[in-house]
Amino acid sequence: MNESWLQRGCRSLDFAAQLAAQERQAQLTKPAGSLAQLEQVAVRLAGLQGREKPEVEKVWVSIFAADHGIANEGVSAFPQEVTGQMLRNFVGGGAAISVLSRQLGAQLEVIDLGIATALDPLPGVLHLGLGAGTESFLHGPAMTVGQVMQALGAGRDAVLRAQAAGSELFVAGEMGIANTTSASALACWLLQCEASALAGPGTGLNAAGVQHKAQVIDRALALHRPQISDVVDGLRRLGGFEIAALAGAYLACAQQGIVALVDGFICTVAALVAQRLNPDCVHWLFFAHQGAEPGHGKLLQALDGQPLLDLGLRLGEGSGAALAVPLLRMACALHNQMATFAEAAVAGRSA
Amino acid sequence: MNESWLQRGCRSLDFAAQLAAQERQAQLTKPAGSLAQLEQVAVRLAGLQGREKPEVEKVWVSIFAADHGIANEGVSAFPQEVTGQMLRNFVGGGAAISVLSRQLGAQLEVIDLGIATALDPLPGVLHLGLGAGTESFLHGPAMTVGQVMQALGAGRDAVLRAQAAGSELFVAGEMGIANTTSASALACWLLQCEASALAGPGTGLNAAGVQHKAQVIDRALALHRPQISDVVDGLRRLGGFEIAALAGAYLACAQQGIVALVDGFICTVAALVAQRLNPDCVHWLFFAHQGAEPGHGKLLQALDGQPLLDLGLRLGEGSGAALAVPLLRMACALHNQMATFAEAAVAGRSA
Repeated sequence: MNESWLQRGCRSLDFAAQLAAQERQAQLTKPAGSLAQLEQVAVRLAGLQGREKPEVEKVWVSIFAADHGIANEGVSAFPQEVTGQMLRNFVGGGAAISVLSRQLGAQLEVIDLGIATALDPLPGVLHLGLGAGTESFLHGPAMTVGQVMQALGAGRDAVLRAQAAGSELFVAGEMGIANTTSASALACWLLQCEASALAGPGTGLNAAGVQHKAQVIDRALALHRPQISDVVDGLRRLGGFEIAALAGAYLACAQQGIVALVDGFICTVAALVAQRLNPDCVHWLFFAHQGAEPGHGKLLQALDGQPLLDLGLRLGEGSGAALAVPLLRMACALHNQMATFAEAAVAGRSA
Repeated sequence: MNESWLQRGCRSLDFAAQLAAQERQAQLTKPAGSLAQLEQVAVRLAGLQGREKPEVEKVWVSIFAADHGIANEGVSAFPQEVTGQMLRNFVGGGAAISVLSRQLGAQLEVIDLGIATALDPLPGVLHLGLGAGTESFLHGPAMTVGQVMQALGAGRDAVLRAQAAGSELFVAGEMGIANTTSASALACWLLQCEASALAGPGTGLNAAGVQHKAQVIDRALALHRPQISDVVDGLRRLGGFEIAALAGAYLACAQQGIVALVDGFICTVAALVAQRLNPDCVHWLFFAHQGAEPGHGKLLQALDGQPLLDLGLRLGEGSGAALAVPLLRMACALHNQMATFAEAAVAGRSA
């Protein structure tokens, strides 16, 4: 297999543009630092986009959907056919991310990597057919080597499409019944912790359901931990098609030089995978929110990520990231359009 | 004096519309509760606006500016002439709130209640001329009875203008050098605490500056506390023109039936004043964010307010409220436009 693209270098930051943005911030008509995190966002974006006045008007949203063999272990509150049904809802315009993409004027694309229920081709959905979902990782690897590499590449392909369309911001979302179980297992391996530290209710398990889910994960970790050879192999054994695609997308964003806005728990696990594959990629990632899944904070901490929102969200689909887009846009507008003290003839601080 | 309008009843909620919205939420294609605070926002807005599908597209922004005699006690990092200079910046389009109002397509109006520096009339600014700023409340009441009632009325007048324009959301902002000192003093009296519990750096005092500010507030409280007869009298003695206007605006919003989005520390103190004058008004208030001023959390707690954002903001001008408007709009869009499980033919939870 050819894994070489995964370690390819990430785009460098433009320190001159970042410095110019920082100097501009210091001159805007407001107490220094009073826009706090939004000032840092604008300055970071300037360095990444290589321009003193950054913009994130053109937004691309890729939704990666897939099914998980582990769903057969009763780890989700919803039946597996929902994954396919939601594909129709995404392109039909009725899902949360469909509504939010319209609100943002963002380009939404839907990628079916491989789901469990038979489905006629859906107009507007890119069907990749990697398999009828993954295998249950309770008994063996979730994916073959070919599948995990195809899924990683599918993420990169989405970023290349976004880039061809001139996108200034890449939002990835996911859909896949049982994918918090897969993501939790993967994160437990990466962070070397027990399932109880990361497993949560997902779409709505009760306490007994969460306990069962954690037991399933711990059993799977006992099987795989001794055998995992590297990060891609861990992803292959414990991950899912859409999680691999997300990780590939985040890597490609950093390599191609497109800012990515990371959604919730599952996307953050994918970001952690990307970081373990190619540490420099994290410079290109913004973290949209801290969600309700109890392990999310731990993941953000591991990535040194400072989320913009904390609304208790747990929907997925990229919805939390979409909700944070206006904050990035307004951070840019403030940075780009506010008057300086000199322009407005406003006095600065007292001596 | 005629205080009668202050206690006039607030508009009632439409429980039928609120219930219809709640039932609609339960049918949308997402795990129940997965949009968390945004679901509650949509349901509350439905009850307030009396329609199952609420909207906050038409946004009105009123900025209330005024000077404070207490500025002479060295309690701010900025000189007093900045208040007047910022008036020009607001209407010139270079201030943070000017930029954000444009981004939101909101109507921005600027009200000069009374500032310390002589200023030719500024096109686009409503000059009310209540005085050359307030008196220093270190030595006596900040305002006369006439002034405090005029300022409260100025807030109501702004809401009536917003209502005449068909506004669905009222955002109030403030500008006034030293107004965190006035707001902190007022809040200390209302919450019966010492200055050290609420006084903070404002626009950027260092530790010694904060300590001095707290001492000034404690001395002023020692003078006024024994003499304050009621809430309006406390507002008159310790408040400022713009703080009284904000309180009047929040009351009028509740009486006229317009949802208000409360900005940071100073606006939250004004909301506390409004609540003490007419407790039911709080149903009409949404709290946009928890700011950097250390006392803000305590104020939000006293009002049982759940802020939408927590970005460390400390700019004022209504900027934090403006930054939260897209979240309200997207909460409405999700609520109004998402498909139901039946419409999308998506299965619900497993039994």
